[in-house]
Amino acid sequence: MHLGLIGLGKMGGNMRERLRRRGVTVTGYDRDPDLSDVESVEALVAALPSPKVVWVMVPAGDATRATIDELGGLMSAGDVVVDGGNSRWTDDQAHAEALTEHGVGYVDCGVSGGVWGLDNGYALMCGGAADDIAKVQPAFDALRPEGDAGVGFVHAGPVGAGHFSKMVHNGIEYGVMQAYAEGYELLEKADMVENVTEVLNSWRTGTVVRSWLLDLLVQALQEDPGLAAIAGWADDSGEGRWTVEAAIDHAVPMPAIAAALFARFASREDDPPAMKAVAAMRNQFGGHAVRAGKPPTQPD
Amino acid sequence: MHLGLIGLGKMGGNMRERLRRRGVTVTGYDRDPDLSDVESVEALVAALPSPKVVWVMVPAGDATRATIDELGGLMSAGDVVVDGGNSRWTDDQAHAEALTEHGVGYVDCGVSGGVWGLDNGYALMCGGAADDIAKVQPAFDALRPEGDAGVGFVHAGPVGAGHFSKMVHNGIEYGVMQAYAEGYELLEKADMVENVTEVLNSWRTGTVVRSWLLDLLVQALQEDPGLAAIAGWADDSGEGRWTVEAAIDHAVPMPAIAAALFARFASREDDPPAMKAVAAMRNQFGGHAVRAGKPPTQPD
Amino acid sequence: MHLGLIGLGKMGGNMRERLRRRGVTVTGYDRDPDLSDVESVEALVAALPSPKVVWVMVPAGDATRATIDELGGLMSAGDVVVDGGNSRWTDDQAHAEALTEHGVGYVDCGVSGGVWGLDNGYALMCGGAADDIAKVQPAFDALRPEGDAGVGFVHAGPVGAGHFSKMVHNGIEYGVMQAYAEGYELLEKADMVENVTEVLNSWRTGTVVRSWLLDLLVQALQEDPGLAAIAGWADDSGEGRWTVEAAIDHAVPMPAIAAALFARFASREDDPPAMKAVAAMRNQFGGHAVRAGKPPTQPD
Amino acid sequence: MHLGLIGLGKMGGNMRERLRRRGVTVTGYDRDPDLSDVESVEALVAALPSPKVVWVMVPAGDATRATIDELGGLMSAGDVVVDGGNSRWTDDQAHAEALTEHGVGYVDCGVSGGVWGLDNGYALMCGGAADDIAKVQPAFDALRPEGDAGVGFVHAGPVGAGHFSKMVHNGIEYGVMQAYAEGYELLEKADMVENVTEVLNSWRTGTVVRSWLLDLLVQALQEDPGLAAIAGWADDSGEGRWTVEAAIDHAVPMPAIAAALFARFASREDDPPAMKAVAAMRNQFGGHAVRAGKPPTQPD
Repeated sequence: MHLGLIGLGKMGGNMRERLRRRGVTVTGYDRDPDLSDVESVEALVAALPSPKVVWVMVPAGDATRATIDELGGLMSAGDVVVDGGNSRWTDDQAHAEALTEHGVGYVDCGVSGGVWGLDNGYALMCGGAADDIAKVQPAFDALRPEGDAGVGFVHAGPVGAGHFSKMVHNGIEYGVMQAYAEGYELLEKADMVENVTEVLNSWRTGTVVRSWLLDLLVQALQEDPGLAAIAGWADDSGEGRWTVEAAIDHAVPMPAIAAALFARFASREDDPPAMKAVAAMRNQFGGHAVRAGKPPTQPD
Repeated sequence: MHLGLIGLGKMGGNMRERLRRRGVTVTGYDRDPDLSDVESVEALVAALPSPKVVWVMVPAGDATRATIDELGGLMSAGDVVVDGGNSRWTDDQAHAEALTEHGVGYVDCGVSGGVWGLDNGYALMCGGAADDIAKVQPAFDALRPEGDAGVGFVHAGPVGAGHFSKMVHNGIEYGVMQAYAEGYELLEKADMVENVTEVLNSWRTGTVVRSWLLDLLVQALQEDPGLAAIAGWADDSGEGRWTVEAAIDHAVPMPAIAAALFARFASREDDPPAMKAVAAMRNQFGGHAVRAGKPPTQPD
Repeated sequence: MHLGLIGLGKMGGNMRERLRRRGVTVTGYDRDPDLSDVESVEALVAALPSPKVVWVMVPAGDATRATIDELGGLMSAGDVVVDGGNSRWTDDQAHAEALTEHGVGYVDCGVSGGVWGLDNGYALMCGGAADDIAKVQPAFDALRPEGDAGVGFVHAGPVGAGHFSKMVHNGIEYGVMQAYAEGYELLEKADMVENVTEVLNSWRTGTVVRSWLLDLLVQALQEDPGLAAIAGWADDSGEGRWTVEAAIDHAVPMPAIAAALFARFASREDDPPAMKAVAAMRNQFGGHAVRAGKPPTQPD
Repeated sequence: MHLGLIGLGKMGGNMRERLRRRGVTVTGYDRDPDLSDVESVEALVAALPSPKVVWVMVPAGDATRATIDELGGLMSAGDVVVDGGNSRWTDDQAHAEALTEHGVGYVDCGVSGGVWGLDNGYALMCGGAADDIAKVQPAFDALRPEGDAGVGFVHAGPVGAGHFSKMVHNGIEYGVMQAYAEGYELLEKADMVENVTEVLNSWRTGTVVRSWLLDLLVQALQEDPGLAAIAGWADDSGEGRWTVEAAIDHAVPMPAIAAALFARFASREDDPPAMKAVAAMRNQFGGHAVRAGKPPTQPD
């Protein structure tokens, strides 16, 4: 197979490498000419045999939309565009419609695997028509982890189902990480166990909670005991928010995943207004002491 | 009525004042001789007519227990001790038993009202035998807010029921304050309304959320716009914890009150280990950036 | 003042009545001719003096949008439309723009007060230009509760700020109700207090948690002891969802209000898939017993 | 090694089998003579060489305490008792003290592995003195999974540290399961993916959320599509409650694990009083419809 790949950053660059290692010809384009195989998207499309398959791996939102619009003008009936970025699933229908008028198929593909995917393979969750997916299948097979059929790749449903599945995957990830994190903090604070890292490490086999995330947490603790080098500050990249919003849309109770999301928000607040309000009310009714507010010049 | 009152701090001192204003004779004892009417607990008991009623208003835990034990040795059959402090309801049975062997009755009384109680009256929730409560009733009537029977005072049930009711009251208080606080923070951050204090003030009549706690929040905001002088740091004094523990004992889902409790815990953490763990896992699987840990010399 | 009012259902009908009682001339229109004062929206607009003010009180969404569009075609520069319904604040900008092209002003107004508003007055939170609001002010003054300026009415900010404020008000309402509800359930289940209604009633004065919602809960319990006639099933009408979504948009931790929302969702689930999954996992790893699934024919 | 093992139920019976397979001589006692190797605890102790090691695997609470007390009277200085049951870590100190007066050592050991332990090995978390643990080590080595030292077994700290670690392990387990369960429910309800089981199955390799619990969930779904045979009803066995209580004791925010616990409580409520209260308040202020309460004769 000969695949076009747009976006050769940390993720796209590794994917190009894995595809090539496993026998897929890749023509890659990136705005950075040092990374790019061709000078333009137009040149990339021209280099591909028909039916042409172009995989888009650029930031979600405007960049993805602009790339898809540009591809619509360059590709032909029977070709396929894959959006492998972190697009919100609610964007997929519009992406598909923008291509449909050119007869071009659209597949949305959630990609999991992070920096480990190059060697271990990427888990792929795809949405779209079976015909379109069939045209991309050799690339999917090269990217996914080796092993049993049925794991590491799924055709989840129609357009949008891939990104929706990936979004839920990430939402679950928030909740699972928060559960380990809460347990870790309790072990640290309760002062009952002598070496928290050793306890967590012992859980890596034979227990109910063994998992890859636990492996990673232990690895981080072994590299940096007590995680002294890492602040208690956690960013979020959108998919946790979308998962909770989708839960709200469908009246699904989602307290644990929402708790994980809110814990990240709270970790980024230096002087939370809500807790100022709680302290103020306590002070008003009970004369309870408050801590002085931070002087406005304090940079933190 | 002539009441003995032990503990004349911020709360007990105001209660003595309100009792006297409303016609109850009070002999008060405090370890601080400047506050005390008598030199000792023994002198206090001796000063009272039979049946003697002594109200204990000292810190929960060891101090309350020691006072009750001392009173048991000084009082006689038919007398009554009231514990009006913030004892955990699970202590009340032991308090009652320590007095029963002397024939002394025991009433537990949760007291709400804070610094406003002197003028507005204290809401009282009592547990114990009807006979014992009857002996204290003139004091209850002097302390409680004026107005309809049935509000401001309740005989909630047997020994323990008073403190249990007060504990649940305080647990509810945590949840109600957290709800206002979350809404306040959203108003502050969303930048849709021009003057958050005015919006909250407008809610003080006619709305579904009008309440005394809202009145207090508005008052705090009027005194200190933006609550700039108050840090986003909230203490807790035990009753929220006990409420959640009681809920766990009875398999009662208590997500909102527990959320309020956890938000206070989180407000007091400078560098939460749980969020260090989340950041570490994100970094391990996705190469996501972390913030550098705080240098150990930083005092905050 | 002479106001046009569209929508004379439970809420709008009461508002017409209160406006008239307090000296505002009202011409009302409703699709139901038995309720309506005129035969059409066109007739309603024609009946008003300039500058004409029309208050729209119809269901949020399509009905409100259609009414606003119709009014845009009938009204003139300097006139004002008020949307007093439960529109999502994110719709207000579009409503305003649809009227701006006709020179017609737009005010969004969140209205609180429910069935009690007729006698007690409605709390009003408004967004829009000061000039437009001034034209409606006599109606606002008739609708709002009597009493101090500054309570019961607020000009919260630009277009959208009224509905945004009302949305946050309702989100807070979810959290406050959930806090009382959790405390109520604990009192019921712990079997410590003899009469839960009496305990709650006693809290209505002097306590920190006294509020109108508490008054209502006590009233409900007095009418129906144990709430035997009411199922443990709670609907939601959108504003709680929007509040949590707005919190997510602004990275505001909102655990208590979200817990209240999720508790309502859960109350409406008869056989929650999430808990089927938990039971299934427990069974797989530990052989823990599960309960048999409900036969599909069971109607409950 | 020759080990005494008291309690040969589902868990203890499998452990005896695994110990024997791997070369440990086991004398087992159970109240059920069909399972027991000896007629009494006394006979079991008599059968062991010194220093004697007896592993207790009976229900936590009174049964464990009674067994330990009996063993204290039968064993001698230098012997060791292991409590491998699900005791609360707060009981361990008392167990140790009851044996110390006889010179008998005490080791608490949390055991994970469930029905899979017989073949895969049991993960073991131990607390106690190093000398005592050394006497049991051959049994630990036979029970734990084969593989690297450092996984599957840990000497976590002093007496209590084993059960404390196991408790936190189980608390994490609650949170992790809840996260998968919430994601599963969203996938089921959103109707975006065609085959939820296939999506979950695809996640079993290459993804961030791969884990043994995910494997089990997929297995359950493959055996029973849609989990039709399992009710949405989840029990809890204590360790989740204790974990949240320990978090409260140490002021550790634990929102996700607490959410998991509360979701189980809610799953077992047929007509939750809290939601009756919410419905009642909504009805009072807004005239919102309620559902009729269940007739008291309904058995569900």
